[in-house]
Amino acid sequence: MQTVARTPVPARTGRAVQVRRGDHVRVVDIAGGQVGDLFAYVASPSGVTTEHLSAAHTRTATSRLFPAIGEAFTTDLRRPILTLVKDTSPGRHDLLIAACDDARYADLGVPDHPSCARNLRDALSVRVDVVPQPVNVFMQVPVRADGTLDWLPAATAPGDSITFRAELDCVVMVSACPQDLTVINGARPTGLAIDVLR
Amino acid sequence: MQTVARTPVPARTGRAVQVRRGDHVRVVDIAGGQVGDLFAYVASPSGVTTEHLSAAHTRTATSRLFPAIGEAFTTDLRRPILTLVKDTSPGRHDLLIAACDDARYADLGVPDHPSCARNLRDALSVRVDVVPQPVNVFMQVPVRADGTLDWLPAATAPGDSITFRAELDCVVMVSACPQDLTVINGARPTGLAIDVLR
Repeated sequence: MQTVARTPVPARTGRAVQVRRGDHVRVVDIAGGQVGDLFAYVASPSGVTTEHLSAAHTRTATSRLFPAIGEAFTTDLRRPILTLVKDTSPGRHDLLIAACDDARYADLGVPDHPSCARNLRDALSVRVDVVPQPVNVFMQVPVRADGTLDWLPAATAPGDSITFRAELDCVVMVSACPQDLTVINGARPTGLAIDVLR
Repeated sequence: MQTVARTPVPARTGRAVQVRRGDHVRVVDIAGGQVGDLFAYVASPSGVTTEHLSAAHTRTATSRLFPAIGEAFTTDLRRPILTLVKDTSPGRHDLLIAACDDARYADLGVPDHPSCARNLRDALSVRVDVVPQPVNVFMQVPVRADGTLDWLPAATAPGDSITFRAELDCVVMVSACPQDLTVINGARPTGLAIDVLR
């Protein structure tokens, strides 16, 4: 396969790419230490349908907190949509934490702040009432034995990437998380890139 | 507080109750070994709004896989909606697994089967496009150290219960999970009850 398109995702923003069944989608952490919130919707001729990658259905299908290499993320209709095929990062990703949004930043005392939820709404052609639980690539939120969660800076080095195979024609949206009030993106939010391989 | 109403939830069905801010809602496992899928929506004069209890936002707010006693479940707008106030069960509950639905039973070879998703849609007055991740009370899906999930029968004894305080006027819906093709409800699905205390 060859990279047929690279879509830069500037720091604090989001971008969406259309992919066909069989394409690979690679999310690259350009500078390292940056979380990406990834969403995927089944494509329709005019944009996207409401069928989307669902964290809860993925956990149910895989019996894991996060799919292993070779396993699929599934939609809310329980269809495989993206299969995890390659991971050159330290392998720490999250499927538990909600996308940052207006309410999150208001709670943190900064009411008007870019967010992964805003980035998703800006990138899609349809109205999104409910922001799905994202796939938080490179986000390091380990689960302790007592069920509590830790929040750590992303452990990625520059150029680390994670690659998925599309199992359906879909729109994949990635937000370079603009969170700069907690430690998850290290010292400051930076950019990502989305490569489509065919 | 006194129990002002008991709503039986017959095996394999669901029921919704309206509660006011400050009310307590108790889910009782009548025969033991039965999972309940609990959903909560903020009330409106004509029924419910789209704002609902969100597992992802709850995990984010509590930094736990499941809230501790005294902690709140929050909505997709990050407002506390239900606080966990009492638990007489062995304390094993799940906030990771999707509600069973038509696709789940089709995958299991039984395409026309009652489900928690159907029960939710039947119980609410509004159209539900996306079934939220439920609070799976009494459901025993432990997380192993390697991130894999186990599926075990509910460990509840007859009469065990879990109690929440409503932080907003809301509609609480409980489905007595009709799953009889896996072990989670033990030998057979049985009924629950919803008590409202005021």
